Amino acid sequence: MSLAEAAIKETPDTFHAKEWLRRYQRVRAATEAICAPLCKEDYMVQSMPDVSPPKWHIAHVSWFFEAFVLKPFHPAYQPLDPAYDHLFNSYYVTHGTPFPRPDRGMISRPTVEDVYRYRAHIDRAMAELLNDPPQEHLEEILRRLELGLPHEQQHQELLFMDIKHILAQNPLCPSYRDDLVPPPEQEVGELGWHLYPAGVRSIGHDEAEKGFAYDNEMGRHRQYVEAFQIADRPVTNGEFLEFIRAGGYDKPDYWLSDGWATVKAEGWRAPLYWVERDGVWHHFTLRGLVPVDMNAPVCHVSFFEADAYAQWVGARLPTEAEWETVAREVPMQGNFVEQDHLQPVASMQSTSAPGQMFGDVWEWTGSAYRPYPGFRTLSGSLGEYNGKFMSGQMVLRGGCCATPADHIRVTYRNFFPPHARWAFSGIRLAKES
Amino acid sequence: MSLAEAAIKETPDTFHAKEWLRRYQRVRAATEAICAPLCKEDYMVQSMPDVSPPKWHIAHVSWFFEAFVLKPFHPAYQPLDPAYDHLFNSYYVTHGTPFPRPDRGMISRPTVEDVYRYRAHIDRAMAELLNDPPQEHLEEILRRLELGLPHEQQHQELLFMDIKHILAQNPLCPSYRDDLVPPPEQEVGELGWHLYPAGVRSIGHDEAEKGFAYDNEMGRHRQYVEAFQIADRPVTNGEFLEFIRAGGYDKPDYWLSDGWATVKAEGWRAPLYWVERDGVWHHFTLRGLVPVDMNAPVCHVSFFEADAYAQWVGARLPTEAEWETVAREVPMQGNFVEQDHLQPVASMQSTSAPGQMFGDVWEWTGSAYRPYPGFRTLSGSLGEYNGKFMSGQMVLRGGCCATPADHIRVTYRNFFPPHARWAFSGIRLAKES
Amino acid sequence: MSLAEAAIKETPDTFHAKEWLRRYQRVRAATEAICAPLCKEDYMVQSMPDVSPPKWHIAHVSWFFEAFVLKPFHPAYQPLDPAYDHLFNSYYVTHGTPFPRPDRGMISRPTVEDVYRYRAHIDRAMAELLNDPPQEHLEEILRRLELGLPHEQQHQELLFMDIKHILAQNPLCPSYRDDLVPPPEQEVGELGWHLYPAGVRSIGHDEAEKGFAYDNEMGRHRQYVEAFQIADRPVTNGEFLEFIRAGGYDKPDYWLSDGWATVKAEGWRAPLYWVERDGVWHHFTLRGLVPVDMNAPVCHVSFFEADAYAQWVGARLPTEAEWETVAREVPMQGNFVEQDHLQPVASMQSTSAPGQMFGDVWEWTGSAYRPYPGFRTLSGSLGEYNGKFMSGQMVLRGGCCATPADHIRVTYRNFFPPHARWAFSGIRLAKES
Amino acid sequence: MSLAEAAIKETPDTFHAKEWLRRYQRVRAATEAICAPLCKEDYMVQSMPDVSPPKWHIAHVSWFFEAFVLKPFHPAYQPLDPAYDHLFNSYYVTHGTPFPRPDRGMISRPTVEDVYRYRAHIDRAMAELLNDPPQEHLEEILRRLELGLPHEQQHQELLFMDIKHILAQNPLCPSYRDDLVPPPEQEVGELGWHLYPAGVRSIGHDEAEKGFAYDNEMGRHRQYVEAFQIADRPVTNGEFLEFIRAGGYDKPDYWLSDGWATVKAEGWRAPLYWVERDGVWHHFTLRGLVPVDMNAPVCHVSFFEADAYAQWVGARLPTEAEWETVAREVPMQGNFVEQDHLQPVASMQSTSAPGQMFGDVWEWTGSAYRPYPGFRTLSGSLGEYNGKFMSGQMVLRGGCCATPADHIRVTYRNFFPPHARWAFSGIRLAKES
Repeated sequence: MSLAEAAIKETPDTFHAKEWLRRYQRVRAATEAICAPLCKEDYMVQSMPDVSPPKWHIAHVSWFFEAFVLKPFHPAYQPLDPAYDHLFNSYYVTHGTPFPRPDRGMISRPTVEDVYRYRAHIDRAMAELLNDPPQEHLEEILRRLELGLPHEQQHQELLFMDIKHILAQNPLCPSYRDDLVPPPEQEVGELGWHLYPAGVRSIGHDEAEKGFAYDNEMGRHRQYVEAFQIADRPVTNGEFLEFIRAGGYDKPDYWLSDGWATVKAEGWRAPLYWVERDGVWHHFTLRGLVPVDMNAPVCHVSFFEADAYAQWVGARLPTEAEWETVAREVPMQGNFVEQDHLQPVASMQSTSAPGQMFGDVWEWTGSAYRPYPGFRTLSGSLGEYNGKFMSGQMVLRGGCCATPADHIRVTYRNFFPPHARWAFSGIRLAKES
Repeated sequence: MSLAEAAIKETPDTFHAKEWLRRYQRVRAATEAICAPLCKEDYMVQSMPDVSPPKWHIAHVSWFFEAFVLKPFHPAYQPLDPAYDHLFNSYYVTHGTPFPRPDRGMISRPTVEDVYRYRAHIDRAMAELLNDPPQEHLEEILRRLELGLPHEQQHQELLFMDIKHILAQNPLCPSYRDDLVPPPEQEVGELGWHLYPAGVRSIGHDEAEKGFAYDNEMGRHRQYVEAFQIADRPVTNGEFLEFIRAGGYDKPDYWLSDGWATVKAEGWRAPLYWVERDGVWHHFTLRGLVPVDMNAPVCHVSFFEADAYAQWVGARLPTEAEWETVAREVPMQGNFVEQDHLQPVASMQSTSAPGQMFGDVWEWTGSAYRPYPGFRTLSGSLGEYNGKFMSGQMVLRGGCCATPADHIRVTYRNFFPPHARWAFSGIRLAKES
Repeated sequence: MSLAEAAIKETPDTFHAKEWLRRYQRVRAATEAICAPLCKEDYMVQSMPDVSPPKWHIAHVSWFFEAFVLKPFHPAYQPLDPAYDHLFNSYYVTHGTPFPRPDRGMISRPTVEDVYRYRAHIDRAMAELLNDPPQEHLEEILRRLELGLPHEQQHQELLFMDIKHILAQNPLCPSYRDDLVPPPEQEVGELGWHLYPAGVRSIGHDEAEKGFAYDNEMGRHRQYVEAFQIADRPVTNGEFLEFIRAGGYDKPDYWLSDGWATVKAEGWRAPLYWVERDGVWHHFTLRGLVPVDMNAPVCHVSFFEADAYAQWVGARLPTEAEWETVAREVPMQGNFVEQDHLQPVASMQSTSAPGQMFGDVWEWTGSAYRPYPGFRTLSGSLGEYNGKFMSGQMVLRGGCCATPADHIRVTYRNFFPPHARWAFSGIRLAKES
Repeated sequence: MSLAEAAIKETPDTFHAKEWLRRYQRVRAATEAICAPLCKEDYMVQSMPDVSPPKWHIAHVSWFFEAFVLKPFHPAYQPLDPAYDHLFNSYYVTHGTPFPRPDRGMISRPTVEDVYRYRAHIDRAMAELLNDPPQEHLEEILRRLELGLPHEQQHQELLFMDIKHILAQNPLCPSYRDDLVPPPEQEVGELGWHLYPAGVRSIGHDEAEKGFAYDNEMGRHRQYVEAFQIADRPVTNGEFLEFIRAGGYDKPDYWLSDGWATVKAEGWRAPLYWVERDGVWHHFTLRGLVPVDMNAPVCHVSFFEADAYAQWVGARLPTEAEWETVAREVPMQGNFVEQDHLQPVASMQSTSAPGQMFGDVWEWTGSAYRPYPGFRTLSGSLGEYNGKFMSGQMVLRGGCCATPADHIRVTYRNFFPPHARWAFSGIRLAKES
């Protein structure tokens, strides 16, 4: 069959499937590029229960396509190894018994090479499927791809977080990459404020609009947002250092009760990765140990630290609805993974609108992670995606320096427990009008 | 001086102070009445870190008046024992160093008798102060009384919770009182629903209105509440038993992730205090071990259980704002401590409005305990009252069978961690319209 | 019947039983005398899992006679309350299910008064039994009494240890008794040494000899003991203070690996109950907080501390066999409970023999607690007495200031885990010849 | 220079040093051969805190020679990387601060390749040193080599234990080697007994004799050993299975108290690595999962299990002195690492003497690991070798199927905590005569 004949045969649907295949391949390639600088030994480490060994990430995101796309819809699909289903499932408890999370670093085999062979096996099968998709299932296949690709992108960001945490355990402070784009030298000015009037706002993803969103963004609904002010940039390292110097970690006055207990139990004295060397504050970054840039946004702080800092300066954290109100009106650009800094950087302020709402650091909000009105979990294993984590966590917004630009949305709801610090998380202040 | 002469001498302020003294004495007497059935040994037990020994409660509520009223404002006040300040402080970390909470059961002296002597000492001094109050401080004194009395009422409810938990440790299942008012025999009908339209609602305590409220109810503000339905009564023991029989505690499907982990770690199979004897479910109550009344509201369930039950029946828990919207329109009456059941009881349903919104069981809402817009903590130690607990907890509404009727309000926000079960907590369902 | 007639009727056996009854009553009275200074609240506290509330001790030692003497041999015996069997059993796992040890402080009822009523009930029944014993069981009854009385005496010593630990939790440092016999003011001289030649020694209780011994002392056997030297008195507080001042708690060099880990984990800086006040070392004693007497034997040190001290001075702890070799030749007298100091005291040294081998402090030996050759556990519940604790513990010898003088023997083997410090335990040094 | 000339030049000392170099190279090569079947990922796993990643072993044994031989005595030695001293120290707390043991699996770099480069660097320097040794230090150098080579051999055995434990975590049950020598098919007969008369025995290493021994074997001394009997072979899997079937893991009667608590806490139902598949007991071995050979010695049992089994059959474990008394009279041969089974195997019994005293399984004795009379720790870091572990551990004797034949001695004292099961440990019975 000639190319021309093939083109003629191609239906719009098939064309669409091929478009998705290209997208799939781009996302998959990005994951592998992230891991390229790793040695095999790095792939094995689980530096804390929340961290997964990179080998596991690499396999798990492939498993997702095997379990939810290939097995149900590829008629001739043969698994490479039936044991992988158990090993690389994560938390989908309704889908078999997942391997215990804290023991992921115990499994040396399949080896890294095996796991890449598994990836390639999945990729070949996905290409087969999407090049010649079963028409009756195509819609469902694409729906699952539409979830599987952001799922892999989330793991890309987790990979950066986990790799950083893994390398940070090493007293030799090895760098992940020496060729990262160096941060700009940029002075930032005084923190300014922008005022927003009271009113009913529509919050959440509009299902009428085009574009993907997670289930937890669904259920667009109205919220009455009282008038408020929001800071024109994130809190900087320099500002946070004043809090440290003022004894912020020594006095319970500004802390939530659970936060203060955590400070005491963990011996926190500064953000994660900060270390004083000869009187100068350094922090561990993906390019190694470097002096802290006082103009860059403070990063790797917990919700507890963000809240205590806000109390100390007489402000508070914005609610989700406030944040979304502001973010709707600013352009969605910033320091994302494509900038290749892999750390938050200082930025010039503008007077017209709050800056750095997207990228740099995930911004802790004052909102607990709970379902929107009308939230419904998907049925089956895919329904476990988000809903079951809706207790004990706080919402963060806006993406960070390790987020792919096409992964983030105004309505995107990230979430971590209030003590978590290994995400690229920072502080945006708000206050009453 | 004749009574008439005295009446003439009495200024409105002094009269007001005396009125408060009577109120003080009523509340104080109620605390002592709660403890009357205890033996000295009961006063000493701390059955888990969250529980305090009754002796500590008895002393701590007195300490509150000593620390915040007598020491600052009674010019001639002499403490009975200076060491008590350290022993009976609770969590006011800015006010000295509190004695470690989990060790409260370790302190045998002062004895129960000593502690009652301390109470009497405080009561005498309070009577002196309020019978002849320093005019320049009267307003502040009364403001603190206005906080101190509800504080003691909260501890009255905690005393019931803690006494129940303490006696429940004992394999002999001793009853607290044998003369409680027996629950009525009442069949309840099918669960019905009431519909509420969408609209902007005012939520929180109106400071313009008369009457006391805690700081966490302040900051009356507008919320847009989408249309919803609410159940006409709490979920019953009989209904919850169906969930148990359907394997509710065996399958992760309906549970939040943290909830399922807790079920596994704690081996939960039924609400707290439930035990099967010869094939019949009994539960431990303040009048001993009795068969479960299938018509009464289920009680001593955690937020996790409430949420899982709601998922299982295809409903959800109401938000705080929904609950308050409904509660504003129903009369504030119910099965409170004055009914002297000390357990939730079945009640006849009405078709006109949701029943049992107040009393019987605290109703778990789906709202995390966070500050209202404009929330400000009071300055100093009193500012620690509520704000610092605003992480990791869920809001409950409406009071219970152990709450004094004059302690509850439509805007009252109670809160417990999602795994807590020793409060008299139950389930009210909601759903989309 | 006249007394003379009664004397005539009395058989030797009956007379013997009555003699045992008097002995029983003396031991029982001693237990109650120990508790006389307690208030009811003291009876309830379990200050750590190893400590039992005094109420439990009081009941448990009675339970022993009920379970092992009255129920099997008193034909008309009626238990006061059948539930007590479960509550006051200790570790006799083959005899029903014992109530969990760490929860003993959770049980407020039976009350202290109830428990004394239980004691009196047992005492009456024991008097009935021993005044008119069933001849066919008399031998077995007396055999069990012979175990039950030392059992109660062991609990007398535990009561002192536990009461001290309970009161020490209290920041008010309450004294147990203010009328204890004050320690003598006595200067002690330089530590001297006594030499013992090598030879085969007979170790353990000689069953041919008269007198009771525990099962763990049985199996008299030969041991070859190489020549050694032993110190002429225990190590004093003053000598131990030099170890502290020399940084003994700061450097791992002298410590066993487990010992050093315990020092770090527990933050040990001095013996238990020591506290520095205004630059002077005090310790908590049963008569309250007093300055440390530098001439008295150091007390409340763990095996780890005893061993580290010995390493530091270039000596070692004696083995059991060495200790017994020495102790056989010295008179069995010392500072026991009858001296009513209830703390170790300084004593004049003699040149003829090692002093203070008995009383004052239990002396840690370098021997792990293991069975003697030929050790056999008794069958049934009574067989659980000692044998099952023969792992992870070290032997101590000689009794202490809280031991009844008629409870101790040359062959007596006490044992505690190497980290335990709440016994009256001290240090005797040995070294090679 | 011709070979003859060289031979002439060679002093006895230099010749001696070269002989040691060859011995060094043989031991070093054996370590590398053990690791040859591993993939890089295997090298990274720390499957429990007691296990070290193979990469760490490989580096640590090299570090020993660097720290104790090369740095002090090789005049021109240059470390490959100064950071390694900290990373690969183990427990020599007086020699810098060792890297925390449970975190050894967290360090991905230096990589496996780096660590082999480090090994080669050490080996080259050792060859330089021993080919041209500084005469004034030669004696001390050889003394340290004499300790360093058995040290590395101990780690060889640990490598087998750890590799087995690491692979056993993997649900895929990967085998370490498929080419191991298969165990012989051998029926064993009834357990027989050998009687030894009472008498004074000399125990421990005779320093007058030639040959190396550890410090803990030193202090040859006399012990009086009462008459005893010892079993003619270890307990078999088949015999142990009878204990399991008789409910051995269900009843506390035969267990030490700490042992029973461990059974309950860990859920033990059989020896480590045993698993039932379709009604047949299998165990994980270094050649994968295979059915249990009922004639082979039971292995991977803790001291607690060994002791409970012995109680159950009415016997006991031998003491160290009994074991040594027997072992002195039997030839030192058995199933060692050279047999290349890497698991205990059945063996034909002889009537003349107890069999399998050496090799197959380490035999738990009833003796706690304590110093011999006159034990002295070496000064400095090397003194930490053995002495500081002398609490909380039990002695094992005789070597196992993973021990190099030239590493074991009659006087060799191995030791593990009583709950440890990952060593190749088994059971030899003894009883009174």
